Amino acid sequence: MNTYPKYRYPEPVKIENRQWPDRILTQPPVWASVDLRDGNQALPEPMGPEHKLEYFNMLVGIGFKEIEVAFPSASADDFNFVRMLIERNLIPDDVRISVLTQARRHLIDRTIESLRGVKHAIAHCYVPTSDLHGRFVFNHNREEVKQMAVDGTRMVKEAIEREGLWGKVAYEFSPEEFTDSDLDFVVEVCCAVKEVWGPSTPDMLILNLPATVERRPPNQYADMIELFCRKFPYLNEVGLSLHAHNDQGCAVAATELALLAGATRVEGTVFGHGERTGNLDVSVLALNMESRGVRTGLNFSNMPEIVRIVERNSGIEVHPRHPYAGDLVFTAFSGSHQDAIRKGFEHRAEISEFFRQGWKIPYLHLDPADLGRQYEKLIRINSQSGKGGVVYVLEKEFGVYPPKTMHPEIGAVVQKVVDAEGGEINSADLKRIFYDNFVNAEGPYRMENYQRASVGDRSGSNFSWFINGEKHELSGQGNGPLSAVVHALKSSGLMPFFKLEDFSERTLGKDADAKALAFVGLRCGEDSEHTSLVYGAGEHSNIDRAAIAALVSAMNRAVACGALKRP
Amino acid sequence: MNTYPKYRYPEPVKIENRQWPDRILTQPPVWASVDLRDGNQALPEPMGPEHKLEYFNMLVGIGFKEIEVAFPSASADDFNFVRMLIERNLIPDDVRISVLTQARRHLIDRTIESLRGVKHAIAHCYVPTSDLHGRFVFNHNREEVKQMAVDGTRMVKEAIEREGLWGKVAYEFSPEEFTDSDLDFVVEVCCAVKEVWGPSTPDMLILNLPATVERRPPNQYADMIELFCRKFPYLNEVGLSLHAHNDQGCAVAATELALLAGATRVEGTVFGHGERTGNLDVSVLALNMESRGVRTGLNFSNMPEIVRIVERNSGIEVHPRHPYAGDLVFTAFSGSHQDAIRKGFEHRAEISEFFRQGWKIPYLHLDPADLGRQYEKLIRINSQSGKGGVVYVLEKEFGVYPPKTMHPEIGAVVQKVVDAEGGEINSADLKRIFYDNFVNAEGPYRMENYQRASVGDRSGSNFSWFINGEKHELSGQGNGPLSAVVHALKSSGLMPFFKLEDFSERTLGKDADAKALAFVGLRCGEDSEHTSLVYGAGEHSNIDRAAIAALVSAMNRAVACGALKRP
Repeated sequence: MNTYPKYRYPEPVKIENRQWPDRILTQPPVWASVDLRDGNQALPEPMGPEHKLEYFNMLVGIGFKEIEVAFPSASADDFNFVRMLIERNLIPDDVRISVLTQARRHLIDRTIESLRGVKHAIAHCYVPTSDLHGRFVFNHNREEVKQMAVDGTRMVKEAIEREGLWGKVAYEFSPEEFTDSDLDFVVEVCCAVKEVWGPSTPDMLILNLPATVERRPPNQYADMIELFCRKFPYLNEVGLSLHAHNDQGCAVAATELALLAGATRVEGTVFGHGERTGNLDVSVLALNMESRGVRTGLNFSNMPEIVRIVERNSGIEVHPRHPYAGDLVFTAFSGSHQDAIRKGFEHRAEISEFFRQGWKIPYLHLDPADLGRQYEKLIRINSQSGKGGVVYVLEKEFGVYPPKTMHPEIGAVVQKVVDAEGGEINSADLKRIFYDNFVNAEGPYRMENYQRASVGDRSGSNFSWFINGEKHELSGQGNGPLSAVVHALKSSGLMPFFKLEDFSERTLGKDADAKALAFVGLRCGEDSEHTSLVYGAGEHSNIDRAAIAALVSAMNRAVACGALKRP
Repeated sequence: MNTYPKYRYPEPVKIENRQWPDRILTQPPVWASVDLRDGNQALPEPMGPEHKLEYFNMLVGIGFKEIEVAFPSASADDFNFVRMLIERNLIPDDVRISVLTQARRHLIDRTIESLRGVKHAIAHCYVPTSDLHGRFVFNHNREEVKQMAVDGTRMVKEAIEREGLWGKVAYEFSPEEFTDSDLDFVVEVCCAVKEVWGPSTPDMLILNLPATVERRPPNQYADMIELFCRKFPYLNEVGLSLHAHNDQGCAVAATELALLAGATRVEGTVFGHGERTGNLDVSVLALNMESRGVRTGLNFSNMPEIVRIVERNSGIEVHPRHPYAGDLVFTAFSGSHQDAIRKGFEHRAEISEFFRQGWKIPYLHLDPADLGRQYEKLIRINSQSGKGGVVYVLEKEFGVYPPKTMHPEIGAVVQKVVDAEGGEINSADLKRIFYDNFVNAEGPYRMENYQRASVGDRSGSNFSWFINGEKHELSGQGNGPLSAVVHALKSSGLMPFFKLEDFSERTLGKDADAKALAFVGLRCGEDSEHTSLVYGAGEHSNIDRAAIAALVSAMNRAVACGALKRP
C-alpha cells in the first residue's frame, strides 16, 4: 500500500516542569453519567424508554447529579424520552440532564426543543478537532472546523434564548478526538467557543476534552490536560471535563492522572459500557478514590443490585473479574491468601492500631461490606486451595473450629478429594467431606454400652469394646470421662501405643440442646522419631459422648492411615 | 471498632527529579506468562494436566520464552505436570519454565526436585516484605523476614547445586506486597538476596517487584520502581520484573508506567486471569505497544483462536468489551462512527500520506486484521445507528453500492424497522429490509410486455402500462431504453409530474450472467419548493430491464410516501 511504517509512537506534547505526578487526588470531580447515551448507543440491543427510565432512577440513586440521557435529534425514541422525563417531572431538582447534538442547525434546534420546560439541563455539542476527522471525514481545514465550533455554539446559545431557557441550560462543548488533535488548535477552538458563549461559570460552561479513542499512554493524557490548563486563558470560568475510552485498557488510569493534571469533571458509565471497549468505568474510579479515603458522593453500597440492574438493561453480563463488581474479585482461591485473610480478620484490631487505619486486611484493599458483599462468601475451595480457606469456611459457615494442629490434616484430605473430583467445591461439599472423613469415623474399633460412674473426684467408665467385631468388657478410671476411657483401653493390653495429646470441644449451636463437636488428637507410633499426630472428631448431643466418639474416631483414622497397626 | 479513619491515601514515596514521565517505551520487556500458575489457581475449575498442556502450547505459539507452570510442592498434579513437560521433552529449547515455591526447606527441595533433567528453568521464591504480612500473617519482625529471604535463597541455591542444575536454573525472588512495603526495607532484603546468590546476570537473577494487591494509583508504582532502580546497587546484574494485579483496574497502566521507570520484565496472563480481579493482561499491554510501532515478539495474529483456547480451558468467557479480544471492541454501532470509518477506508491512501503512517483510521487505533479479525464484521446496526453503517454493510457484504443521495432514504427506512423491532439486526436482515423496501417495489404501477426497438441512434420502447390494474398500451423514444420509457410515460398524459434525476447501475457479480442492480432517483412534486427525491431499485439479469424496473419501483415508492399523488 505504501512505504510508511504501519504504526507510530504517539508524539508526546512538550511539557516542562510537569506538576501532576507530585499531586494526590483528595477531592472528587463532578461525576457525569453517559450511560444512557454513549453507553446505550453501543449495546447490541439498546434500551427502550422503560429500561432507560429504570436505569435513570438507578443513576439518581447512586448519586449522579449530571446524567446525559439522549441524542434527541437522532431518533423519535430519544426525543420522546427527554420529553417524558420533563413532562412527568421525573428529574430531581438537584439533577441536570444533558442532551447531545452535532453542530448543525436543524439538529441543535430539535435538541433544544426537547428541553422545553426543564429546570436545569446541559446542552452538549461536539466538533472533531483532529486533522483525521476534520480533513478526511468532514473535508474541512482547521479554520473551517473552528468555524463549525463557533457556529454551533452560537446556534445553541440562540436556541436556548429562543426557548426561554437562558440561565437554566448550561453548555458543554467537546473537541472530539482531543487526544489526537493539535493542542494549540484545541486551545484556539475552545477560546473561540468561550468568547462566543460569553461570561461564564464552571457549572454553566463545560469544556469536555475526550480521549474519543484511547491512542496514547495514560500519562500523555495527563500531560495534555496539564498543558491545556496552562494555555487556556479562561480556566476559572469553565468546568474541565474528561471523557476517556478504554481501547488500550487504561481509561481509569488515564482519567485518574488527568484529574491530577487539573480536570474537574468526569464522564463515564457505571460498568464501562460505550462504543467498542467502552467508556471510563466511573464505578471503578469512584471506588478507587473511596479506598483511599476520599468521599466521592457516589454510593455503591448495594453493588449486587446495581449489577443486576445494569445486566438486565444492557443485556451484557458483568465479567467475574470486573473490579469491585465481579463475582470473583473478593474471592481468594489460594490457600496462602485464604490463610492470610483469616489471620487478618483475627488480628483486625491490632492491625488497625498498628497502621492507624480502620481497614487493612491482606489481599482486600477495600472492605467488601462497603459494597454490600459478605466475607463469608469470599473464600472458595478448588484444587489449588489449601488448609487456610478450608478452615475459614468451616469456621464461618458451620461454626466448626478445629484445633490449629489439625488444619494440615483437614487441608490434605480436602485437597485429595478436590484433586480427584476436579473443579471447585462449595461449602456444603466441604462440610460433607469433613464429616465423612473426620466425624465418628468407623473402622476396627467400636464402643457400646458406655456407662459413666463417679468415684469421688474421679470418673469411672464401663463399656463394651469391639475390635474387628470381637467384644471385650472394659473399665477404667481417670480425671474425667475421656481419661477414664483412655485408661481402660491402655490397661486392657489390647491396644497399640498411643498418647492422647490434644482435646477440644465446642457446641455447634447456641441453645442448651445443641450438639457438641469434639476433637481428639492422638500421638501414635512407638519410636519417637516417626510418631504422627492423627485427629478424629466426634459429634453427640452429650458432651462426654462427643469426646469419647472423637477418641474412637481418631483411633479408627489412625489405623486407616497406618499410624496405628491394624489390629 | 476503632476511631481511625477506615481508609487512608497511600503514602507516596519521596522522589525528586523523576524521569519516567519524560520517557517513551520503545523496547519490549521480557514477557513472562503466569497463566498456568497465578492464573490457574484462581479459576473456579482449575485446569487439569491436559488442559494445561494445550494452554502451554498456545503460550509457546504466542511467543512467550518464560512460562511459570506450577507450584510443584503444593500438589501432586502440579509436580507431575512439571515432570511430564521435562520427561516428554515438551519444552522448546528457547523456552524456560518457571516453578514457584514458598521459602521453606521441604517445599524448596521438592520444587527443585521437580526440575530434574530440565535444560533451562527458573526457580521462583517469594517472601512477603510488607509489615501487614510480616507481622500479622507470619508473626515476624523485619529482621526475621529478611532472614526468611536469605535462608530461602540459600536453600534454593543449595538445592539447585545438589540436583546438578547450577547454571541451568535461574533464580527469581519476589518481595511479596512490594507496593505495600517500605521501599528501603525491600532494597535491603533484595541486596541480601543478591549477596547470598552471588555474581549474576539479568537472565539468571530476577527480582520481581509485585503489586500483589493494587493499592496505589499507577504513577506511584512507577515512582517506586524508579526509586528502587536508583537505590539498588546491583541493578545491572539483575532482571527487574513487574507483576501487577488489577484490583483498581489499572494493572496495564501501572505496568506501562513502571516499564518507563526502569523495569525490564513483565509477568502477567493472556486475558488477565489470576486471583480476584486478576493479573496484568499481557495481551493488552503487548498490543498497546504494537499499536505504537513497537515489535513485542508476541504474536496475536489469530486472536479469535486464542480467545477460544483460553475460554475453553479457563471456563470463563472473554468479556465483549475486553480490549483487542472482545466481540464488540472493533464494532461501531453509532452512525457517525460508521460513517467516519467508511470515509477512513475510502481515503486510506491519502490519510496514510498525510500522517506518514500506514494505518490511521477513525475509531480504530489498531488494524483489526492484525488480530485476524475482519472489517466487514465490525459495523453493526441497531436503533442508534445511522446511514453510514448501513451503507457500509450493503457495500462490503453484498456489493450493493447505492448512490450517495440515496443514503439518507435507506438510513431512514432501516432505522424505522430497527426502532419498531428493537434490538440489533444482522447483515442478512439488513439486506432483506433493503430488498423489501427498495428493489422492484410494488404499487399502483406495473409494466408488462416490454419490447425494445432501435430507431437509428435512438431507442424505442413499446409496453403495456398498468395503473391500478387498468391496462394502457404505450410507446416512446429516447436516447436509451430508460429515456424511451420515460418519454412514453410522460407523453401519455397519464402520469403526474416527475423528473428522472439520477440513474446508476452495477452488476452484482463478476461473471457475464450476473444480475444487475439499478438505482433511479425521481424528483417529484410540481411546485419547486416542496419537491423531494425518491429512489427505487431494480434487479434483473438484463441491464435494461433492471433500469426500467428501478424506475417503476421508484414511482411506486413515490406514491407510497406521498411524493407522487396516488393515481
